[in-house]
Amino acid sequence: MAIICLLTDFGLSDPYVASMKLSLLRHCPGAQLIDATHLIPPHDVVAGSIALQRLMRDAPDDCVHLAVVDPGVGSSRRGLVARIAGQVVVAPDNGLITWPWRMFGGGEAWCIGWQPTKLSAVFHGRDLFAPVAGMLAGGRSIEVLAEPINNPVLLPELCPSDGPGGRLIHIDHFGNAATNLPASAAEGYRRLRVGAGVLPLLRTYADAAAGQALALVNSSGLIEVAVNQGSAADALGLKPGDMVELLA
Amino acid sequence: MAIICLLTDFGLSDPYVASMKLSLLRHCPGAQLIDATHLIPPHDVVAGSIALQRLMRDAPDDCVHLAVVDPGVGSSRRGLVARIAGQVVVAPDNGLITWPWRMFGGGEAWCIGWQPTKLSAVFHGRDLFAPVAGMLAGGRSIEVLAEPINNPVLLPELCPSDGPGGRLIHIDHFGNAATNLPASAAEGYRRLRVGAGVLPLLRTYADAAAGQALALVNSSGLIEVAVNQGSAADALGLKPGDMVELLA
Amino acid sequence: MAIICLLTDFGLSDPYVASMKLSLLRHCPGAQLIDATHLIPPHDVVAGSIALQRLMRDAPDDCVHLAVVDPGVGSSRRGLVARIAGQVVVAPDNGLITWPWRMFGGGEAWCIGWQPTKLSAVFHGRDLFAPVAGMLAGGRSIEVLAEPINNPVLLPELCPSDGPGGRLIHIDHFGNAATNLPASAAEGYRRLRVGAGVLPLLRTYADAAAGQALALVNSSGLIEVAVNQGSAADALGLKPGDMVELLA
Repeated sequence: MAIICLLTDFGLSDPYVASMKLSLLRHCPGAQLIDATHLIPPHDVVAGSIALQRLMRDAPDDCVHLAVVDPGVGSSRRGLVARIAGQVVVAPDNGLITWPWRMFGGGEAWCIGWQPTKLSAVFHGRDLFAPVAGMLAGGRSIEVLAEPINNPVLLPELCPSDGPGGRLIHIDHFGNAATNLPASAAEGYRRLRVGAGVLPLLRTYADAAAGQALALVNSSGLIEVAVNQGSAADALGLKPGDMVELLA
Repeated sequence: MAIICLLTDFGLSDPYVASMKLSLLRHCPGAQLIDATHLIPPHDVVAGSIALQRLMRDAPDDCVHLAVVDPGVGSSRRGLVARIAGQVVVAPDNGLITWPWRMFGGGEAWCIGWQPTKLSAVFHGRDLFAPVAGMLAGGRSIEVLAEPINNPVLLPELCPSDGPGGRLIHIDHFGNAATNLPASAAEGYRRLRVGAGVLPLLRTYADAAAGQALALVNSSGLIEVAVNQGSAADALGLKPGDMVELLA
Repeated sequence: MAIICLLTDFGLSDPYVASMKLSLLRHCPGAQLIDATHLIPPHDVVAGSIALQRLMRDAPDDCVHLAVVDPGVGSSRRGLVARIAGQVVVAPDNGLITWPWRMFGGGEAWCIGWQPTKLSAVFHGRDLFAPVAGMLAGGRSIEVLAEPINNPVLLPELCPSDGPGGRLIHIDHFGNAATNLPASAAEGYRRLRVGAGVLPLLRTYADAAAGQALALVNSSGLIEVAVNQGSAADALGLKPGDMVELLA
């Protein structure tokens, strides 16, 4: 059974995600639909890109991702299909694929040529991207729907760091703060400087006392600032963009 | 595979929606369940009706909608099955079908006669409406479960306007404000007055500069007030009920 | 088709739930996945336990529940499989099963012995509990994956009361406040004291005037404090832990 993952900034209070799902099912009946998240802050392509990579790390080969954070809908921005790490992403060509592309070592990209008979100017998620994702999940080949390109939009501000310096890129639901430092950057280091504090690099949350701050490798393979059974973002006043540094 | 869409005011912090889904699956195993939204403001039948129509516009023939915003649960209000625009709605008979009924040109209505062996006084979504929706999605005919009626409850306050005057009826997740003016009402007009301002009628968000306000036809076919890459509701202080007027 | 219900404190803004679902599907392709809720307050095992029981009351025999509220992840806390009321729960052994265990009259418990080839220190929901839940839903027997134990962790603070005294244990999305008094405790009583007020025990919300407070038996079979078409928690200033008392 085909699996399609959905990631958007549509929120959960309107039936927009459902409209997109009905469009997917029309082109791929019986598909297993998995919500990645629909609470990407409105128009925040960077946050969408980070969440997309996080899920792709755990997704099976040939999984199709429909990712729509699309402030430029109806303008001349291109529609994109990308093959990254054995998976397929359908998205607007606005940088949304940046973090997976850089963290998984690049990929292939195509510009969507397929056109629906009826295309609204304001909801390409439903009218364009969902049909393409549905057809690809149903077995259609990318080449029939899209033309190869070698210049997908990539955001310069979203880059992994080799260390020792890095920065916070994402605060999660628990208040954990992920950096742009992959686990490999931590080799030979035992501590992480964050603001005025220096935290020990430990194995898991419970290795610190309840309420104590620590650094660790998170479930996505990035170095993360956390507080055991608490919110690091609240306790330490963290926000995306804050500088960090690995220390011996 | 049968598709059943769910729309409620149950929220997402309790397992109420899940209880209803398990009840659906008992009567229609393997159905594809699609969440329209469960964040209709508690007891807000008008908001539920608008969201229901928005999804029905994109749903396939024979789709079954289970819509439960039910402040009168356990009272003498009737249970309703309606056939509108080739789709089936199961809901309390409290006006929830008003906006689809009026926007899609009416329909047929039935009063639910079927009774479960065990009916709680407080959760007809689980005990009554979900079983009926499940049976209908599974192929049972409406006539076996319900009696035709010609007076489903319709809310007088929820009416489309032929223009040029209208009003805001819904603020969405992005802060876009939909009016009760269908696209057809815009013919011959080029601007929309909202409060003290006059906005150009454009094709899509990106036709205005970032941060600029505009009017456009939204993905549901209604005239909408928006701000490109921003929230019109916040920027212009909009709320449902505000008057608008089409201008040449 | 196997049904697996998911209950966590992961929130909806990160793709953590989706990662867990992809792990489930790898071990039980085509399973029907039902979200109980993912908005349990972070690390709140008591709230998770109450929500779990609420859904299990409505779930079919052999349903598998994957319940992850896991502040002790990566520590020495055990992984648990429990059979309660004909259903299977996979969860950390930290008291999460307390309320179902006590309300449904106990059950059987096993300690998970199965180990994945790759186990992160920070996300056992994805790496350990989801695979086990998927295998059990797919038909593997518990005994192959886990060893019987007779001492699952049960929280002393979470106990049903025989009445007439009890306390509030949960505030729901509507502001309804559930007590730890099962319906059976209400026999012979007609009123409920809450704080300084005394409320009538009625059959359903609509038996009180709009805006009026009442007590009733809720859809989970517990006595609950409610306000018809309003929020009892807001109107009466209720919170979990508040004492209540049945009166003649």
